[in-house]
Amino acid sequence: MTLKLHNFFRSSTSTRLRAALNLKGLDYDYVPYALRDGQTRTPEYLRRNPQGLVPTLEREDGSHLTQSLAIIEWLEETHPEPALLPKDADGRARVRALAHMVALEIHPLNNLRVLFYLRDEFAADEAAQKQWFTHWVTLTFDALEATLADSPETGTYCHGDTPTLADLCLYAQVWNNKRFDIALDKWPTIARIFAALDSLPAFNDAAPPNQPDAA
Amino acid sequence: MTLKLHNFFRSSTSTRLRAALNLKGLDYDYVPYALRDGQTRTPEYLRRNPQGLVPTLEREDGSHLTQSLAIIEWLEETHPEPALLPKDADGRARVRALAHMVALEIHPLNNLRVLFYLRDEFAADEAAQKQWFTHWVTLTFDALEATLADSPETGTYCHGDTPTLADLCLYAQVWNNKRFDIALDKWPTIARIFAALDSLPAFNDAAPPNQPDAA
Repeated sequence: MTLKLHNFFRSSTSTRLRAALNLKGLDYDYVPYALRDGQTRTPEYLRRNPQGLVPTLEREDGSHLTQSLAIIEWLEETHPEPALLPKDADGRARVRALAHMVALEIHPLNNLRVLFYLRDEFAADEAAQKQWFTHWVTLTFDALEATLADSPETGTYCHGDTPTLADLCLYAQVWNNKRFDIALDKWPTIARIFAALDSLPAFNDAAPPNQPDAA
Repeated sequence: MTLKLHNFFRSSTSTRLRAALNLKGLDYDYVPYALRDGQTRTPEYLRRNPQGLVPTLEREDGSHLTQSLAIIEWLEETHPEPALLPKDADGRARVRALAHMVALEIHPLNNLRVLFYLRDEFAADEAAQKQWFTHWVTLTFDALEATLADSPETGTYCHGDTPTLADLCLYAQVWNNKRFDIALDKWPTIARIFAALDSLPAFNDAAPPNQPDAA
């Protein structure tokens, strides 16, 4: 038995978790779900994850963990090395705040079920969906760029020279942005960090196009 | 010098943090901001919090912490008692997942700047805003109710018989729901836990109507 990752190649919360598992050196079976086909709305899947969301991490004992950031915190507590959070409380607060800027202020607004709602209830066409998506990315990336560029704590990555929880969220979000062709020109620090992350096998192996269910 | 909490009475992320500070027995100065008047978009405030969001916790040394969940995790690490997370990794994963269901799947979709966008870009009137708000609350509260009702780990509160991070998020969200008169009848376990929390001074003192800037 090994870990099973119930996920979807393009899901940004799945990308975060795949990279975390890779960084921790944990092997897992990849179980893909086609979100557009409702494969996470079946009774069987809802028993694993009552929200019908990906990712869900199924453990060796058959129990399930949900919510990507909660799972990553669990990984950090149960497999501490290599660390995804700094040792000091101030550094941990900074890393979590950077991660949450992306995970709470961008991603929840831009996932598939929200775009579907806009399409169905507000007749939002592709252009209106792109404007919505880009608006929330821009609001937070402007603030994130300023925060990263201004701080001596920013290094090769978001916090120093080893990847952290913040980088997991940033990396996955930049991949998500490609859905609407959002370039990084306005955000040079974010672009630099993304390129550094993308050169690491743990991240690149987690990228959407490199998954078995990629179109 | 004492802690300063830059916040807004009705902000649900502020309510979470106020209750956490109360539970930890930490005194703070209350600094209110009228969100609708753009008081968090001033250059002075943006230096504290580049996202222009509340809450921001200003520490005794003048430094600032942002993002409510990151601040609460910092409080937990620096002031461990009373604990807002269980001691065991599995329990911590459950509490964080419950907290994140609310904090990531409801709140980011329903805050003021999102409702303003819907009004301005999609001509969403009060009824359409209510429908949007209620939709995201219902999706997650249905799953949360099932999760809480099915689990032997649920106690007086979301996890056992002492309040946790999950309760902070739940309590603040139920207050937020009152904005659109969303009743709890469909979710008896959530209603029971909210009532239990509301009887605790640490929570009740943090409730929106009990703040100095409440209308």
